[in-house]
Amino acid sequence: MKKTATRLADGRELIYYDARDDAVRDAVDPRPLDPVATSSEIRHDRLLGDNVAVASHRQGRTYHPPADECPLCPSREGRHSEIPAADYDVVVFENRFPSLAGDSGRCEVVCFTSDHNASFADLTVEQAALVLEAWTDRTAELADLPSVEQVFCFENRGKEIGVTLGHPHGQIYGYPFTTPRTQLMLRSLAEHRERTGRNLFDDVVADERADGRRIVMDGEHWIAFVPYAAHWPYEVHLYPKRRVPDLRDLDEGARTEFPQMYLELLKRFDRIFGQGEPPTPYIAAWHQAPFSIADRGEFALHLELFTIRRTSGKLKFLAGSESGMNVFINDVPPEAAAERLREVASK
Amino acid sequence: MKKTATRLADGRELIYYDARDDAVRDAVDPRPLDPVATSSEIRHDRLLGDNVAVASHRQGRTYHPPADECPLCPSREGRHSEIPAADYDVVVFENRFPSLAGDSGRCEVVCFTSDHNASFADLTVEQAALVLEAWTDRTAELADLPSVEQVFCFENRGKEIGVTLGHPHGQIYGYPFTTPRTQLMLRSLAEHRERTGRNLFDDVVADERADGRRIVMDGEHWIAFVPYAAHWPYEVHLYPKRRVPDLRDLDEGARTEFPQMYLELLKRFDRIFGQGEPPTPYIAAWHQAPFSIADRGEFALHLELFTIRRTSGKLKFLAGSESGMNVFINDVPPEAAAERLREVASK
Repeated sequence: MKKTATRLADGRELIYYDARDDAVRDAVDPRPLDPVATSSEIRHDRLLGDNVAVASHRQGRTYHPPADECPLCPSREGRHSEIPAADYDVVVFENRFPSLAGDSGRCEVVCFTSDHNASFADLTVEQAALVLEAWTDRTAELADLPSVEQVFCFENRGKEIGVTLGHPHGQIYGYPFTTPRTQLMLRSLAEHRERTGRNLFDDVVADERADGRRIVMDGEHWIAFVPYAAHWPYEVHLYPKRRVPDLRDLDEGARTEFPQMYLELLKRFDRIFGQGEPPTPYIAAWHQAPFSIADRGEFALHLELFTIRRTSGKLKFLAGSESGMNVFINDVPPEAAAERLREVASK
Repeated sequence: MKKTATRLADGRELIYYDARDDAVRDAVDPRPLDPVATSSEIRHDRLLGDNVAVASHRQGRTYHPPADECPLCPSREGRHSEIPAADYDVVVFENRFPSLAGDSGRCEVVCFTSDHNASFADLTVEQAALVLEAWTDRTAELADLPSVEQVFCFENRGKEIGVTLGHPHGQIYGYPFTTPRTQLMLRSLAEHRERTGRNLFDDVVADERADGRRIVMDGEHWIAFVPYAAHWPYEVHLYPKRRVPDLRDLDEGARTEFPQMYLELLKRFDRIFGQGEPPTPYIAAWHQAPFSIADRGEFALHLELFTIRRTSGKLKFLAGSESGMNVFINDVPPEAAAERLREVASK
């Protein structure tokens, strides 16, 4: 793997991750870009105790451009995109319309492949391994920024969840604080340690293995299951069997097995609703330990993959109960979801 | 106001709320309904510490029926709906497809008017006052059920947020626990009392009044503002000026003023995006104190009204950051939202 860091015309960072060690990355961004003006602001909600990023400059962001104006495709003569090169393997760059910027964190875009019409599930094992390298490297790099406390690598896939660019890509948010969802987990973790002397993540994974009904895949280094109290119609959690706090700490075995496991999971997601259905919209979310918390080693890196589609043609909406009271209603029993995800395994 | 409680053919409760004290409600439900079979189950998520309602029987629920088969319209010869009567003012009944039922709580439907094509904003002040009576009465009635700890009256409006019945209606959930969102508020409330000796709700409202930039309406008994850290593009919180824990405790002045204030707010919501736009999708959520908490009087009843539309034709989606990490990104500055909501006041 070769990594080449460069800058776009407006000063934003762009990093190529190449499979070949002899890749040369010297293309220059010729666009007359103004410096990025952001007015991102973090506001604290005193009643809920959380923080909201107010980012008004984003209203003008690129919205469903035609395929021949895709800002994530490689550049070609007369059509310069966000990526100056004529081709690439994996590329990461700072978002031109960031929700978080400057003192309030960082937002990056990860292009998984230069193939506009592919999706993550179409990548080869080698390509997926390169994306894992990029996620890991970005986690390490962002850990050094004083404005970043927690790194969140994720992918939103599908118009149904508001994706405005069809090119296969993900995002990386560097939050300046520990996120509320992670705070909830840390609190449960501490209470469980106090009460039982054990690690809650370890117990949750062990209990899922012992029960077995919700296991979707059981590899040498990773295990995938629908959680007992899944919030979404189809939701899978993927844990490395050796608990680590973030991507940097995965060992070689886990790194090697991850691409196969994850590609298979994504393929199964696309098969849940059967032939002739549009691709399953999903969110894939890496949970990593914040950097400056106590007992960081207690946290368990894992990936949560879920879809908002509840059945053919019908979406799960976050309406009154979910948005108003944070109480999820799930119409698909987790055991049935796991069974379906086992049924659609690749032959 | 006259209240008449009756039962549907399958045993579910149905209650008429009539403006006229001489209304006679003796229509019988002639449908051959099977008893409602529910498999609602509450599951606890050990990592997040919340509860999920798993309700698989809901997958078969009524989904965008044609207008002449609306289950919320009055019954007529040969077409029997959920409401046996040939007309009604406001009616509440137990949901045939409940997310919560039996030991795990209760779900009710509130029909705001028999006029299929109206919306809440079209109601007269008298009709809206009758809905307030119904919400209040239901809160009082559900308080007596051992399976209900917190009553949540809400309205989802718009296909965009998954509403599957066009008839103007809301819902009431009786949760068997204190909801996570309310728990967050209770925690902040306790911490603030401990630290300052004051009530956090009172301080939040007082600070909004002192600042002034986010005030939308300031009545004699109610105040409406966009909160400093609004999570949604357009979000308004409506508080009675005299703090009360739930709807039952509103005084006569607040009861009388509420319909005018709320109808005006809803009309403004419909005007945010200008002429020619479809009606603004929104969620209206009443926050009430759970029944068996300590210091119940500290809680402040209020209504939160918000839309998921961020600009003409564009929706705010809960994608990676919101769904994965519970961190909201808001593209509309709260001060700009409040200004817009003042601009579109009724003349």
